[in-house]
Amino acid sequence: MPQPDHISKLGVPDPATLDDDLQAIWRKCVDKLGFVPNVFSTYSLNPRRLRNFMAMYNEIMLSDSGLSKLEREMIAVVVSSANRCYYCLVAHGAAVRALSGDPELGEMMALNYRVARLDARQRAMLDFAWKLTTTPWLIDDSDRAALGDVGLSSQDIFDLAETVAFFNLSNRMASATDMMPNREYHRSVRG
Amino acid sequence: MPQPDHISKLGVPDPATLDDDLQAIWRKCVDKLGFVPNVFSTYSLNPRRLRNFMAMYNEIMLSDSGLSKLEREMIAVVVSSANRCYYCLVAHGAAVRALSGDPELGEMMALNYRVARLDARQRAMLDFAWKLTTTPWLIDDSDRAALGDVGLSSQDIFDLAETVAFFNLSNRMASATDMMPNREYHRSVRG
Amino acid sequence: MPQPDHISKLGVPDPATLDDDLQAIWRKCVDKLGFVPNVFSTYSLNPRRLRNFMAMYNEIMLSDSGLSKLEREMIAVVVSSANRCYYCLVAHGAAVRALSGDPELGEMMALNYRVARLDARQRAMLDFAWKLTTTPWLIDDSDRAALGDVGLSSQDIFDLAETVAFFNLSNRMASATDMMPNREYHRSVRG
Amino acid sequence: MPQPDHISKLGVPDPATLDDDLQAIWRKCVDKLGFVPNVFSTYSLNPRRLRNFMAMYNEIMLSDSGLSKLEREMIAVVVSSANRCYYCLVAHGAAVRALSGDPELGEMMALNYRVARLDARQRAMLDFAWKLTTTPWLIDDSDRAALGDVGLSSQDIFDLAETVAFFNLSNRMASATDMMPNREYHRSVRG
Amino acid sequence: MPQPDHISKLGVPDPATLDDDLQAIWRKCVDKLGFVPNVFSTYSLNPRRLRNFMAMYNEIMLSDSGLSKLEREMIAVVVSSANRCYYCLVAHGAAVRALSGDPELGEMMALNYRVARLDARQRAMLDFAWKLTTTPWLIDDSDRAALGDVGLSSQDIFDLAETVAFFNLSNRMASATDMMPNREYHRSVRG
Amino acid sequence: MPQPDHISKLGVPDPATLDDDLQAIWRKCVDKLGFVPNVFSTYSLNPRRLRNFMAMYNEIMLSDSGLSKLEREMIAVVVSSANRCYYCLVAHGAAVRALSGDPELGEMMALNYRVARLDARQRAMLDFAWKLTTTPWLIDDSDRAALGDVGLSSQDIFDLAETVAFFNLSNRMASATDMMPNREYHRSVRG
Repeated sequence: MPQPDHISKLGVPDPATLDDDLQAIWRKCVDKLGFVPNVFSTYSLNPRRLRNFMAMYNEIMLSDSGLSKLEREMIAVVVSSANRCYYCLVAHGAAVRALSGDPELGEMMALNYRVARLDARQRAMLDFAWKLTTTPWLIDDSDRAALGDVGLSSQDIFDLAETVAFFNLSNRMASATDMMPNREYHRSVRG
Repeated sequence: MPQPDHISKLGVPDPATLDDDLQAIWRKCVDKLGFVPNVFSTYSLNPRRLRNFMAMYNEIMLSDSGLSKLEREMIAVVVSSANRCYYCLVAHGAAVRALSGDPELGEMMALNYRVARLDARQRAMLDFAWKLTTTPWLIDDSDRAALGDVGLSSQDIFDLAETVAFFNLSNRMASATDMMPNREYHRSVRG
Repeated sequence: MPQPDHISKLGVPDPATLDDDLQAIWRKCVDKLGFVPNVFSTYSLNPRRLRNFMAMYNEIMLSDSGLSKLEREMIAVVVSSANRCYYCLVAHGAAVRALSGDPELGEMMALNYRVARLDARQRAMLDFAWKLTTTPWLIDDSDRAALGDVGLSSQDIFDLAETVAFFNLSNRMASATDMMPNREYHRSVRG
Repeated sequence: MPQPDHISKLGVPDPATLDDDLQAIWRKCVDKLGFVPNVFSTYSLNPRRLRNFMAMYNEIMLSDSGLSKLEREMIAVVVSSANRCYYCLVAHGAAVRALSGDPELGEMMALNYRVARLDARQRAMLDFAWKLTTTPWLIDDSDRAALGDVGLSSQDIFDLAETVAFFNLSNRMASATDMMPNREYHRSVRG
Repeated sequence: MPQPDHISKLGVPDPATLDDDLQAIWRKCVDKLGFVPNVFSTYSLNPRRLRNFMAMYNEIMLSDSGLSKLEREMIAVVVSSANRCYYCLVAHGAAVRALSGDPELGEMMALNYRVARLDARQRAMLDFAWKLTTTPWLIDDSDRAALGDVGLSSQDIFDLAETVAFFNLSNRMASATDMMPNREYHRSVRG
Repeated sequence: MPQPDHISKLGVPDPATLDDDLQAIWRKCVDKLGFVPNVFSTYSLNPRRLRNFMAMYNEIMLSDSGLSKLEREMIAVVVSSANRCYYCLVAHGAAVRALSGDPELGEMMALNYRVARLDARQRAMLDFAWKLTTTPWLIDDSDRAALGDVGLSSQDIFDLAETVAFFNLSNRMASATDMMPNREYHRSVRG
């Protein structure tokens, strides 16, 4: 039986009806990636909210930070693993594979990050991401101190926390709408 | 022993050093609320991220929507109850009290929303909020259908989902930084 | 929509039909507190059991003990927080506010005690209360030793344990009967 | 290695030092059961609290009620199973065996009550006991209605709830003190 | 009400229809134990699978190993306790009683192994068994190191792990088929 | 940092030292798959146990059954998803991709089977697999009836249960030994 071909169970507007700025972004995505990520299409049900989502996404995932882009994608996948979010695991698992050139690393982040060989700094960040996702009420000074011990500054901890927080947001949007990832993600960088 | 008087365990910049647009917002908060909410101060560690956060917050909580502002605050508190987030329970519990004029309703949302007397539509929204927060991977068509049955449109479900998602983000920022709520919230609208 | 005005979903006898000793207690409550706590009204469905409940309550919460009355109320609230018991959080949250004169402390105990500034002894007692409530089967010698390390005697540990145990009882009576707290609690000592 | 022979990790006073009324109870226990139940010895660390405990115990477990004594013991064991309380499972498992004359029934209550053949009324009571023990915050009108459907009156529901509540208390006293059951329980009514 | 007298809810073939090798095993069981264990009867619905199950069972539980037969039965019971498997708790609880001559030890393993007096090696093995059963994804090098610290070789850890793994299999066969233990187990070695 | 290249943290014997029958199987694996699955190498630490494991594996996964080979692999992956078992998710995820020719189906089974489009029979089998894996003690007649309703015979339910049970065994062997999957699995059938 073929797998679902919807983008979002809440429906998606015809891209031709979107405002010019969004149509420009759609064209840029097609040029660069070959497709428009379905999270953007899903969010286009409400263009103002889409713009906010993209602004926040770009800042968290693409701006300068003490955390590398690969590290931010690893965090995205570990959060999505805790929340068992299909869309984000597929889309950001592909990003981990692409940025690391290591197909296994993407699988490990998605399936159980504890089996990966990581340096102490990355392991501490991912342990924090898991705990902040699953039992945020238990985070205390000892957790922040553990991040300081492996060299994270306050600003780094802020960036880590916001990355974790953002994927706790986007995981829930994906689950609430049954968002399906673009099929292109499955094939990329499989080694 | 006096309770903590920090704003964020990651530290907060001197407001006088912030950009003019942010200082203007700070002044507006003081004029309107009597204080700057500590979540803004916490986020001012990174002004670009603060601006994104405020834009998203304003759109989700204050823009026109099929969900009333009170309903959005009720959702905020129920999500924060599931995540046991002190900051958001105090700040948004006060908002429920203020918008409803019902001090008990705020307490019920914070402590166990199931004891409240609610119409079927509100109860369905809060049940969805709890499930999407605690077990997002179990959300399926039957959950969306239950919302349709009480009259929510696709756009309403989108707004509900994004409100839930947003507080799953902000709860985690608060827990990660041990953010303390402004003391003013405790006193307001106690009946 | 006004919040529920029942006392207990199992019904409550007319106070005028109660035995003289209970009517005397009712009058004493009105004199002292301004109202009869709804837990007594709920329990008056079975007067013999009410008398036992009051005897145990008075002994645990009001007798001489190595734990202060405030500490016992803090334990009551933390147990009720773990069990998300609306009645006990409202009634005993008010007691923490009244005994401490600190409105924030009551909120912290109810919402997430880990954010409070506490001395090591109180923190150890509340950690024990949480664990004994949520995973009693995991309590072992190391938990008792941690209490000894902050100065609790065997008798103090007994008193702590019984306070935790008692609110695990009363939380379940409140949830089983959907017991509503008297509205007076909401207003008191809000700072 | 021989199993533990302590009664309580908090220590137990010499029975000869107890007040006369308690010594009389001790003698009565020996006459009737052949031994003093260790829960009484444990509680004798604080005689006033012991008296309250015995009063409540006798009323809940031995007084007239719409629930039979066997049913109350079955509830006691199911609550203790959820809480994995060794003392109560051994002592009250023996009581189920004795009152029912059915050694398997005691084992089923202790290990997984869902495998037992029960009438609808007993099954509903035990399902309520499990839920009220493990997730009291989820109890709602539908749970009470399910008890009404199998014939329980409001007074019966009160008695059921208090039995569940009481063993949530005593399980925690046993776990907090590492209370060991008297060895006599193991042998009795094994079929 | 008499307890269930079925063997398996999926039905059991007439033993007279089984192949000769199985009938020989049936006779051997009757000679040695007085009965055919119901797990064998349940599995005889598919004789090839029964043969594999018996081969694996015999190798794991009866062959030479660094773990004593009693230790393997203790592990079996602790795994079955975590999974609340009635069949295995009854059958292997009896085996612990028989091999140890200690009726309490069997009960402790079934009800809460943490109350038992055990040497450090046994305690470490049972802690590993519990964790590998309930949260296998959290097992890491520190867990294996803790076993090495109490003297287990790699081969011993393999045997421990396979015993845990095997009862995670058999617990699920028992739960899936509602397998009832032979009544003879209840009576044996009760002290 | 390159990912781990061990096979099992308990060590693996030199294949040249294995008995002839096992060396023959090793050669057959290389001929057919291009490699020896690391689960066999891990188990070769104890050849008798390896033989039992292979016999059981072959019978459950490859023999005639009312469940197709693809369905059995889907069950294997869903069980491994519940247990977050890296080895089995990688190895059997590849098998789902290979047998179905559908790369997305493999990912869905591994990450959250509820997002897949499945017929009612397959969905019922996977719901049963998840419940039997995570809360086996809650399986009851209604669960078996749900399988009968979609056409499963008693023998089919037996096969389903044993498949679930077997991967609950093998997941734990993999986690206990930190078993790494052969790298070849990652690349296969990625669409």
